[in-house]
Amino acid sequence: MNSRHIMAAFPAATDAQVTLANWRQHPFSEWAFRNVRELLPTANIARSPTPTSLTFAQCYLEDVTFANPRGDTIGLGEALRTSHTDGIVVSHRGRVVFEWYANGLTPDTAHLVFSVSKSVAGTLGGILADIGKLDVDAPVTRYIPEMNGSVYGDGCTVRHLLDMSVGIRFDEDYMARAGDVINYRRSTGWEPPDASIPPIHLRQYLQTLRPDGTPHGHTFHYVSTNTDVLGWVYERACGLSYAKILSNYLWQPMGAEHDAYITVDSHGAARVAGGISATLRDLARLGEMMRNNGVSNGRQVVPGWWIDDIRCNGNAGAWSRGDLTKVFPNGNYRSKWYTIERGQPPFAAIGIHGQWVYIDPANDMVIARVSSQPLPMDLDLDHMWLRGYRAIASRLAGKS
Amino acid sequence: MNSRHIMAAFPAATDAQVTLANWRQHPFSEWAFRNVRELLPTANIARSPTPTSLTFAQCYLEDVTFANPRGDTIGLGEALRTSHTDGIVVSHRGRVVFEWYANGLTPDTAHLVFSVSKSVAGTLGGILADIGKLDVDAPVTRYIPEMNGSVYGDGCTVRHLLDMSVGIRFDEDYMARAGDVINYRRSTGWEPPDASIPPIHLRQYLQTLRPDGTPHGHTFHYVSTNTDVLGWVYERACGLSYAKILSNYLWQPMGAEHDAYITVDSHGAARVAGGISATLRDLARLGEMMRNNGVSNGRQVVPGWWIDDIRCNGNAGAWSRGDLTKVFPNGNYRSKWYTIERGQPPFAAIGIHGQWVYIDPANDMVIARVSSQPLPMDLDLDHMWLRGYRAIASRLAGKS
Repeated sequence: MNSRHIMAAFPAATDAQVTLANWRQHPFSEWAFRNVRELLPTANIARSPTPTSLTFAQCYLEDVTFANPRGDTIGLGEALRTSHTDGIVVSHRGRVVFEWYANGLTPDTAHLVFSVSKSVAGTLGGILADIGKLDVDAPVTRYIPEMNGSVYGDGCTVRHLLDMSVGIRFDEDYMARAGDVINYRRSTGWEPPDASIPPIHLRQYLQTLRPDGTPHGHTFHYVSTNTDVLGWVYERACGLSYAKILSNYLWQPMGAEHDAYITVDSHGAARVAGGISATLRDLARLGEMMRNNGVSNGRQVVPGWWIDDIRCNGNAGAWSRGDLTKVFPNGNYRSKWYTIERGQPPFAAIGIHGQWVYIDPANDMVIARVSSQPLPMDLDLDHMWLRGYRAIASRLAGKS
Repeated sequence: MNSRHIMAAFPAATDAQVTLANWRQHPFSEWAFRNVRELLPTANIARSPTPTSLTFAQCYLEDVTFANPRGDTIGLGEALRTSHTDGIVVSHRGRVVFEWYANGLTPDTAHLVFSVSKSVAGTLGGILADIGKLDVDAPVTRYIPEMNGSVYGDGCTVRHLLDMSVGIRFDEDYMARAGDVINYRRSTGWEPPDASIPPIHLRQYLQTLRPDGTPHGHTFHYVSTNTDVLGWVYERACGLSYAKILSNYLWQPMGAEHDAYITVDSHGAARVAGGISATLRDLARLGEMMRNNGVSNGRQVVPGWWIDDIRCNGNAGAWSRGDLTKVFPNGNYRSKWYTIERGQPPFAAIGIHGQWVYIDPANDMVIARVSSQPLPMDLDLDHMWLRGYRAIASRLAGKS
């Protein structure tokens, strides 16, 4: 199947038709990840009427080299073309120095960012905390009394949601054919209708989740539903839908150039943990804002103390007891952002199938990359791209 | 149920929750008709990067009077407030003279226009015919061979689709609880999932439709599916999705200020006949362009001959033998636009639940109005508003 033929006829050929039954499988995903709105109901996240302008200063970077998963040296151009990357924007000292699009993506096309959505939610949390709308140390039940009786009612605070340290029984196995992840996705509308299962919507499903016996705050346990609960907390705190909160407090103040959007379930609940689609340039603006300590377009959009806290106050012990030490052995996680290597500046938002916003403050560099990698988790590609990001940073530093 | 409470909490109260099961029922429809994107998958219809600017010259029109359905004289203000109107824009001599929004609608909010979508499709047909992409006299099967065996294969031409003169067996009864309209809506995704019925998508469903024995071209028979077939013809003629065709050839050239969108089924087929949501100001731009013989922003977007043909060449005999003589006894229909009264200039795009683009060239007036009238068809309200439009035209003419 040549991916250019996907959805290219009316109707598409049988093996080129994207539906809810195949949309996250490659090669269907290439079309699907930039057309989520045509597959699912979505809520709009309105752009700014006065977008933050980008400046461009093109650098030739295609010959930056790094090791591929087999240990061979390849250039950036080859890496992009062979890793299912759909697009990348590199900014250095606030200017876009490299931009590349493939597989139908364009500067105007929003792409699904999966769990980069979580970092967006974590960033929004700092904004709401700073203006007093959100108490991150409050129990979740202060905002959502319905959570009494669930894992989120048992002493669980907003901070535990932010830091993925809820003691929850949930197996976040993206390859599973049944169980937690499937039940969860079904509640968000991401699975095709299944007549044999009684329908349950997201906010109902979240109330069914139960503890695993681990004390909250003890262990980094990566579970998407925590972030959906967080978004629900924001809705109760603000009296607005998640999409409106995100637009009003972050997307517009940041100066986004394009509308973003987020998938919603049958009852209007946003898939806060992974449902945002946005353009690469707006992801680059997000990264630049984080690099600039929360300032975008001359305006303090995210409080600087929140970003300092993200970069300094992750719980290393919780991380080392947690799920993702195979990905980043000495990493950390705070307010839904990853520190790649404790004690070093780079931090990142990361989503499955190859979505990244990588921020390297020491090298004044931001990289936004979106992809349709066939595997949800692909450590070989993740580590290749980390090498790639570092090689790009070195090249740019050498040029300064 | 106060409609302001609909979808206002997280989750909404049980009697304030909009879902696919209630979205077209009042009062849920008030929220739903301006939030279709949160209920269904949609394809974007991109705005122009250089929108046609509107000029404003406010007139006080609220005291324009006309008869309500009981024969009492009421003012425009009262009529708007008591007829489930969500918004109206009146333009005179190319300037917006009156603008009014209610029930959460704003100048930036797209509203479902139902069968006004058909007139958009009819307008687009003229553009495609003029550049040679579409032969309106060709049989449908030249574009869609799969239609052989259906009513659309039996000598049915594109012109028959445009003029609603297909001899089709189909009962367009919006109040039916089963039968043609329900089966059709289900294929478009507009009905909630029903596990007891095998799923069928729109392009499959269209192939199942059969003749009723009437020769094509003989009788005006208002059947929505004709317009969905027309959109499919355009897709085959252009090799693009309907939303892209509409954006490329009409929405952008016209200078639309806002993205519009159209609902799509499980396989990406647009509900061409009734699935567009657009802002009132862009509907006013559409109306102004039609009034100006196809010119928008100084550019001939729709060929003038196509609009002349719409206004002059409807088949009066077909109309008088047809479905809607109760609505407009001496009306006409051509390329999906209504002539209200044969021999008189006003023509219109009309959708159920109170959607109108009313064009009165003799009085240099355009009215775009969107509503959430509880009944799909409400002749009393339709006729009241026709009196209202004429009264507004008289007032504006008197002011000139």
